[in-house]
This record gives sequence, structure tokens and C-alpha cells, in this order.
Amino acid sequence: MLSKSDTKFIQSLHLKKFRDAAHNFVAEGSKVVLDLLQCKHLACVHIFGLQHWLHVNEPLVRKYYLGPLQEVLPHELEKMSALHTPNQVLAVFEKLAPAPVIVAGNISLVLDDIQDPGNMGTIIRIADWFGVKNIICSMHSADIYNPKVVQSTMGSLGRINIIYDNLNDWLTQNGIVPIYAAALNGKNLLQSQKLQEGILIIGNESKGISEGLLQLATEIITIPKVGVAESLNAAVATGIILSHLVPARL
Amino acid sequence: MLSKSDTKFIQSLHLKKFRDAAHNFVAEGSKVVLDLLQCKHLACVHIFGLQHWLHVNEPLVRKYYLGPLQEVLPHELEKMSALHTPNQVLAVFEKLAPAPVIVAGNISLVLDDIQDPGNMGTIIRIADWFGVKNIICSMHSADIYNPKVVQSTMGSLGRINIIYDNLNDWLTQNGIVPIYAAALNGKNLLQSQKLQEGILIIGNESKGISEGLLQLATEIITIPKVGVAESLNAAVATGIILSHLVPARL
Repeated sequence: MLSKSDTKFIQSLHLKKFRDAAHNFVAEGSKVVLDLLQCKHLACVHIFGLQHWLHVNEPLVRKYYLGPLQEVLPHELEKMSALHTPNQVLAVFEKLAPAPVIVAGNISLVLDDIQDPGNMGTIIRIADWFGVKNIICSMHSADIYNPKVVQSTMGSLGRINIIYDNLNDWLTQNGIVPIYAAALNGKNLLQSQKLQEGILIIGNESKGISEGLLQLATEIITIPKVGVAESLNAAVATGIILSHLVPARL
Repeated sequence: MLSKSDTKFIQSLHLKKFRDAAHNFVAEGSKVVLDLLQCKHLACVHIFGLQHWLHVNEPLVRKYYLGPLQEVLPHELEKMSALHTPNQVLAVFEKLAPAPVIVAGNISLVLDDIQDPGNMGTIIRIADWFGVKNIICSMHSADIYNPKVVQSTMGSLGRINIIYDNLNDWLTQNGIVPIYAAALNGKNLLQSQKLQEGILIIGNESKGISEGLLQLATEIITIPKVGVAESLNAAVATGIILSHLVPARL
């Protein structure tokens, strides 16, 4: 039986201010929860699962996690869930403690007010695919612990070092490597050199990169357009640019 | 004043079976509505706008559309809308009549059960950016007139020829050009030749491309992975592959 206070606590974690206060966040669904459990940087504090899920997955879960493992009924899971169709298991994790950002020898992404949680999650997953080490988000970017972000990272959340900072200050201090900015009027991406180390700035979904940050870029790059669409989705643009700039093996 | 029957009709269009029956669909938001109005293949049948939006946009709207232009109150718009935060204007359009698909000399996308409406919309927008002429969707792919798809195409919907068909039959009949399939165990995308004409198959978000279709491909290609993530989002993969295969000018 799930206690009222547990339900209330989980529901509170759907909101940023309560996640910040408790330093906890929620992950849902079998794949995401099992992926995050296996991430050595992340500490799980509670798992709530349906009977069948626990029966199948307990041996695997116990390899990585020794804390409370609680059976819940479908309607209890539904009450706690942020998803339309809750998916067998919900887990509470401690938020990650960001590590120092090392830009030399690495590729880092700078996100200037990415607002959509789906885009934020997809960008984290792309970063993980291309071996990006750090993501630096502006203070008004979507919260990486928003349930929709956690869902769309597909487990990549624990493998990237992500911080929130004033981008102007951060870029000024870290401009020891090339700073590329993605915009609509830059140099052709296809003519750019591969990047052994550097920073890539991606702008807000509708406003792009703010003027002040553009001026800190060493190069503005553009994905050449063949057709008519006005722009590309921010996550798609990030994927395309990294696929052209990141060498096959760093 | 909005009539009850108008409200009911618009709400019904949120469901595929009623869109199919009426051969109509809904677009919302100033940018999307104005973009679609300017598309010569699309016929608008009704516009419902807030007073301020109509005041500002009527001159532009009247260049492209002479039908009913109805003022509604915010709570009326909210009642009709499929969005969380309705955005000033909602328009009803006639569904597009698909044109014959010409594969020779063109790039065409084949979508094998893309389920997520956001992915479907984003792929249509990507196709429009890279000059893709045709999209052939499996019969169980997301409906392109789903409100979330229309929203995420950002106006590109009217510029691509999109049909639904049995993919096995369609590919068998249209394999006169190279057929590329995106999968996790293929040839390195970075070593592929640019494609002057051809077909690119993109698979379902979790299951990938079905076995039968893979066998119809002339080449299986893979986006090289540098990091750890298991896979990339289907729309992101589409964007990356097209950015490498489509010549800068067709």
C-alpha cells in the first residue's frame, strides 16, 4: 500500500521548485529506470513498481541498488506518474552533482535558452551519442530534471556533465577553445574543419542565439538549405552539426 | 458568437476518423496558419481569430483567402483548441490531395511506422529543409493531420507530397532508384556517396525498420557513434543522414 505522503512527495517532484528543495527527481518507465540505475554517478533512493515488473526485474535491479523497492497497484502508479500512460515503474533519484567543466580536449555544448523539455532531452541524448562531455545551459533553459526531459534522454542523463550558468560569463572564462555558433547566416557547415576540441552554441527555438553571445563566437556556422523550410528544430540542428564536426573517434 | 455546432465540428477534427470523414484538418497559431494560407496547394475553409489578431492580420489574410473570418473570444478559442495554450487563431483547411509520386531525379523518404506526432512533424520540416519531394508513410504511421503534427511542421506541410501506402508494395514498384535504409549495423554514413536521386527508409522509434523492408534496401547505412547512447531520435537521425547524403544543390 502506498502512503499518502509518498504519493504527495512524488507528485511534488513534477515541479522544479520541489525538485530543487528535495534535490531529487523522478524517472519513469522500465528502460529509463534500468538505464539510470546502471549509471555510476546517479544514486537511486526509492523504486515503485508493479508486481509483474518487480518479479521480472528484481534480480537485475539488486545488482545496482539496495534501497526500498515497493510494490504498487496500477492506480497508485497512475496517481504518482507524470506520464499519460504510466509504464510499470517509477523511481526517485538524487540530482547529479555537476563536475568541474573541462573544455580543453573536449566538445562542449552551450544551450542559450532551450525551452522545450523534449528538445532538451533529445539534445542530451545526441550529446551522449557524439561523445560530448559537457552541456552548459543558460539559467532560463528547461530544467534537465523535468519529467519530460528525463523521459526523452533515454538514460543518457547520467553520462553528460550538465551545469547551469550565466553564459556570457562562462564563455568569457572558457574561450580557450574555438567557439562555434549555429545561426542562419554563417559559414557553410560542410566546409568546416573537424573539431578536436571546442564549444558549440545552440540558440533558443524561436529567437536563436542572443546577440551578446554571438559576438563571443569565433565562427558562425550554418547548415546549408536545399529546400524551403525557414528553419530546423533546435535538437535536429544540434545533431546535424555534431555529425559533421565531431571526428569519428575523438 | 461561436455556434455550438462549429465548436463541436472543430473538436471532432482532433480525431482522425472525423478528419477523414470531413476531409478537413485544423491548424493553430499565427505562424502556422499564415504559412499554410500562403501555400498554393492548400485550401482554407474557415478562420477563427481573436479580435486583436484579426485586426492586425486581416489585410495579409485577405490576399490569400476570401472565406469566412470569424472573431471569437479567448474562452471560445480555448474550447476549440487542441493546444494547452491556444494561440490567437485557429483555421480549418481541406486535406491535401496527394500528387503522383515521382522518384526519378528526386529524394523520397519512406517512414516505417513513425508513431510520435512530434517526430512526424519534425521529419516533414526536415524534408522541406533538404528539398525532399515525397514522403511515403506506412499505413500505421502517425496521421500527418494530427494537430501535434501540423503544429510541429511549422508550415512545411503544404510543400511536401505525402502519401500513405503499403511500403512493401510501394518499394517493390519504385525501386528504380537506390534505396538506403537507416539502421544500427550498416555502412558508415560518412563514407557514402552523395545521392542525386534515391529513397531513404527510416524505421519505427523503438523497433527500427521491419525485416521485410530491410531486404529491399540496396544499402544499409549507419550514423557513426562516438559516445555511448544506444540510439538517436528518429527525426534527428533523418536530419543527420539527409545532411550528409543530399548534395548542396539538387
